Amino acid sequence: MPLSAQQLREIEEQRAEATPTRRAVSPALEEMLYRPIEVLDHGFVRVIDYMGDDAAVVQAARVSYGRGTRKVSQDSGLINYLMRHRHTTPFEMCEIKYHVKLPIFVARQWIRHRTANVNEYSARYSILDREFYIPAPAQLAAQSRSNRQGRGDVLQGEEAERVMRLLREDSERAYEHYQEMLNEDDAGEPLDAERCGLARELARMNLSLNFYTQWYWKTDLHNLMHFLSLRADSHAQYEIRVYADAMMETLRAWTPLCAAAFEEYRMGGAHLSAKGVAALRRMLDGEAVTQENSGLSAREWREMMAALGRG
Amino acid sequence: MPLSAQQLREIEEQRAEATPTRRAVSPALEEMLYRPIEVLDHGFVRVIDYMGDDAAVVQAARVSYGRGTRKVSQDSGLINYLMRHRHTTPFEMCEIKYHVKLPIFVARQWIRHRTANVNEYSARYSILDREFYIPAPAQLAAQSRSNRQGRGDVLQGEEAERVMRLLREDSERAYEHYQEMLNEDDAGEPLDAERCGLARELARMNLSLNFYTQWYWKTDLHNLMHFLSLRADSHAQYEIRVYADAMMETLRAWTPLCAAAFEEYRMGGAHLSAKGVAALRRMLDGEAVTQENSGLSAREWREMMAALGRG
Amino acid sequence: MPLSAQQLREIEEQRAEATPTRRAVSPALEEMLYRPIEVLDHGFVRVIDYMGDDAAVVQAARVSYGRGTRKVSQDSGLINYLMRHRHTTPFEMCEIKYHVKLPIFVARQWIRHRTANVNEYSARYSILDREFYIPAPAQLAAQSRSNRQGRGDVLQGEEAERVMRLLREDSERAYEHYQEMLNEDDAGEPLDAERCGLARELARMNLSLNFYTQWYWKTDLHNLMHFLSLRADSHAQYEIRVYADAMMETLRAWTPLCAAAFEEYRMGGAHLSAKGVAALRRMLDGEAVTQENSGLSAREWREMMAALGRG
Amino acid sequence: MPLSAQQLREIEEQRAEATPTRRAVSPALEEMLYRPIEVLDHGFVRVIDYMGDDAAVVQAARVSYGRGTRKVSQDSGLINYLMRHRHTTPFEMCEIKYHVKLPIFVARQWIRHRTANVNEYSARYSILDREFYIPAPAQLAAQSRSNRQGRGDVLQGEEAERVMRLLREDSERAYEHYQEMLNEDDAGEPLDAERCGLARELARMNLSLNFYTQWYWKTDLHNLMHFLSLRADSHAQYEIRVYADAMMETLRAWTPLCAAAFEEYRMGGAHLSAKGVAALRRMLDGEAVTQENSGLSAREWREMMAALGRG
Repeated sequence: MPLSAQQLREIEEQRAEATPTRRAVSPALEEMLYRPIEVLDHGFVRVIDYMGDDAAVVQAARVSYGRGTRKVSQDSGLINYLMRHRHTTPFEMCEIKYHVKLPIFVARQWIRHRTANVNEYSARYSILDREFYIPAPAQLAAQSRSNRQGRGDVLQGEEAERVMRLLREDSERAYEHYQEMLNEDDAGEPLDAERCGLARELARMNLSLNFYTQWYWKTDLHNLMHFLSLRADSHAQYEIRVYADAMMETLRAWTPLCAAAFEEYRMGGAHLSAKGVAALRRMLDGEAVTQENSGLSAREWREMMAALGRG
Repeated sequence: MPLSAQQLREIEEQRAEATPTRRAVSPALEEMLYRPIEVLDHGFVRVIDYMGDDAAVVQAARVSYGRGTRKVSQDSGLINYLMRHRHTTPFEMCEIKYHVKLPIFVARQWIRHRTANVNEYSARYSILDREFYIPAPAQLAAQSRSNRQGRGDVLQGEEAERVMRLLREDSERAYEHYQEMLNEDDAGEPLDAERCGLARELARMNLSLNFYTQWYWKTDLHNLMHFLSLRADSHAQYEIRVYADAMMETLRAWTPLCAAAFEEYRMGGAHLSAKGVAALRRMLDGEAVTQENSGLSAREWREMMAALGRG
Repeated sequence: MPLSAQQLREIEEQRAEATPTRRAVSPALEEMLYRPIEVLDHGFVRVIDYMGDDAAVVQAARVSYGRGTRKVSQDSGLINYLMRHRHTTPFEMCEIKYHVKLPIFVARQWIRHRTANVNEYSARYSILDREFYIPAPAQLAAQSRSNRQGRGDVLQGEEAERVMRLLREDSERAYEHYQEMLNEDDAGEPLDAERCGLARELARMNLSLNFYTQWYWKTDLHNLMHFLSLRADSHAQYEIRVYADAMMETLRAWTPLCAAAFEEYRMGGAHLSAKGVAALRRMLDGEAVTQENSGLSAREWREMMAALGRG
Repeated sequence: MPLSAQQLREIEEQRAEATPTRRAVSPALEEMLYRPIEVLDHGFVRVIDYMGDDAAVVQAARVSYGRGTRKVSQDSGLINYLMRHRHTTPFEMCEIKYHVKLPIFVARQWIRHRTANVNEYSARYSILDREFYIPAPAQLAAQSRSNRQGRGDVLQGEEAERVMRLLREDSERAYEHYQEMLNEDDAGEPLDAERCGLARELARMNLSLNFYTQWYWKTDLHNLMHFLSLRADSHAQYEIRVYADAMMETLRAWTPLCAAAFEEYRMGGAHLSAKGVAALRRMLDGEAVTQENSGLSAREWREMMAALGRG
């Protein structure tokens, strides 16, 4: 369970308060607000705040004075047009803020998205919790043989058990030594009243990359969708993809028209190269096109056939 | 009057709606929401949306689960500390969105602030209004003789009148020729049914830099304060400073603790150079320090004396 | 002629100097360095500096110690892979700096690309030249009837002449009044020794959007290609496209492998939506797919047919 | 020794090549090019490429055609002026690229500087080296008692030895288990031919935050100085400060005038608050100002007195 009873109580107290506002409100996202969506063994994503909705995208695209049309069909048509033609600035007019708890090696991938605002829990200043990620057995994948950056079959039996045991024992030992170096027990009391304890900013270096950290992360709707297009993709590492999947749910609740356009024109589409288009034209003309006469490399041909469902 | 009766009605309709929200609400900013603050002869700034408040800065700095303390004094102490030590990321956790109507030459200065999101009214797509900026007589400043980038005394009498007349006549002629090239009258009807009209994206080039444009502009609290520190400063051009002054009012309503810290530690402070600090130390030791023996250039000395009120 | 004899002499002097460097050198770009490529009637683009080459992209992708492979085929394969899978960070490792002279309305489109560094000639501080853009007769397009943001047929005869005359006369008058308000002649002497002249930061507002400005503009290779994908595109306004076309030439000289990959996988390709892919799969299976049974809107169908050369 | 003989040979080969260029060249930085400056026990910083020099800042500030003045005094005066008045855009016109090897916990602080380009060695794709940071005895600081984010006295004797041993043993065990999970020995051969090995993207999570990673990091001169102002500061953690100190040396070699202005107006200066300026004015008028009658908090007073050398 990632949150304590005290934390959950604070969250429910916050949810209990409702204040009238003149701003745009997204009812479905209000319903999710503050509550953690659990991810991995100790992680979560929760929406802390948001600004704007589908209509705000339309309003900004038109630089209009009022709230814009009330007809969903017109808004939807404009949003689809903007998405299709990559007019990205209106989507930057909505903003969302998350509180995320995640393993450090996931945080290191995530932080590469620079167009966002971040406040991370500081292990120079505070002490990290005794929480580390151990993959579920179904996620214990072997190294892929075909793709140097991917996963192959799942490890089984004794080998799987051994990996789990190593990860768990090393993490537990790392945390115990972290506490010993800090000279603090779980309650924050000195383990040995004679000693003073190593500086926090140094002791943290003994923790491994599967320990959990947490942050506030805020971005605009355009950059959120860009993040999701890379991290909810099947090539993304499983451990970050599950966060992206959870955030995709919040996107659908928040701005349903933008989410639908995003799934139709970004996530669900395919990009063809110039040679790919030329090959496709010949195929549509009834020609028997093969990789060899297509001008595409074997790998590109395979990728295109997969995209066209002819793999 | 920058807005039409129809536009003002739409704004009041929007203000009349209130919806409950679980999010942080800034009551004083809700009071200002959507209403235009008039700036220059046809311009305005109005707040369209916002996210977060003073407590959200504190909450992000602590990466906390609930809303943080309810004691203003603790929040204020932390906000002052963050501002003083330039811990900028917590201030990035609040966001504000404005609708601004402004002369094009002001827009060109403003847009140099890159860490913001912008949707500008498109003169490729739409037709600009017959609205251009003419300085009030008190703003008709001569070129400064001491500072190549500044204003000197105000022009008087015939010379002032001549400048005003030139600006007004040229602007009016430019707009009439714009309409003639577009082949459209004020009601959007063709002036001459036989002709087809120049493309909008070309005709706009006949308008001068004092014509008004408008945009939606969104930024976070940290970057808003950075904008204000440069544009609400006495060295900024008058025509952008009046916009910054109006936005400073919205800042005070929105996040009063941050605004106070900003005025105390940014706007109201002074930055001294290494040589300046050395000179000051000698002065505090009772030494008679002059520009000549200070190591500062005449200009730096003048600037420091002014900052210390000894000019 | 956009540059004076004095300026051209300075440029040739700069070109005459060669200094040995240990850095990567792009011989074809060295050949173009500093020399203006003329664009429109008074504009230009010239490369001022650059950093890196094709091999630098490969070197960064591998985080390697030396210069990487010397085999062009291996570098080319990796660059194609990076481009195809949108691994953008290695392309950010090269940088280029241009000096551009361009009409203000073009500058206003250009500046919307925020991931770049800019130093613009300041009309608060200096006086703009008597140079304004007048479209060539072949560019005097009428407003498109089908596309609100586009050009239709070229204006002819009297109507074209009238437009040219209005643009030219208004620009010339605007500049004369600019000088009169500044109280300066072409040589910088006061027109009237009794008067003092309006502040430059104010007088400039009388100039129209077709006057030329200039700037230093610096960006990385990834963002340059993003700029070109939007501005060298057929939907871009002609007056910015000609700048992008000139810069495409510099890209080909600088990093030929990246330029080829960019043209194959970005400029020359096509993006299909989820419904578009579904329709295409049915077409490839021999089904007679029409717009009506495709699930695509009329406009989307038209765009896809055009991309597939079946328009 | 952070680099292998093979790597050092590749670096010297690269240094041996010199090619003529028309671009600006910084002779002192050419002298340092490619060679590693050693930092901590296994880390380094080395300059891989650069663009521009002091004169390029001046040239951009003037948007000039040639190389600008050859008089160092004029360039220096302009650079000082730009630095003093925070005209930052001309400093963005120079660019530098580093190759850095650094502990992961340092990398996590460093990456928070978003206005830079980064390519990090990928532990999803490749295997990390058996290299981890162990603090030198003089750096084994206790947690500060007065400042929650700082270091106090250095640990001594047995306690220091115990910390060193824990760090070293845990790191060595973590790496052995990493190899065991990967099923690879130091030469990349399978440890056990029957097993297949855990995916790299998973196994890396067993490594601790003191393991070394490496990246290419590129930024412009303005953002480099901003980085240095925070990380070469006495409040920065020692382990990142030593990198900043090494980069300060490269800054001095590259753009000596900018580096001097930076040290005079940024690093060496002091920022006073509004109340601080008011107190200082009274002190200069001979008044006996104390913390109590100054209006400053005890902490602010202490900080100001320290800045003025009256602590």
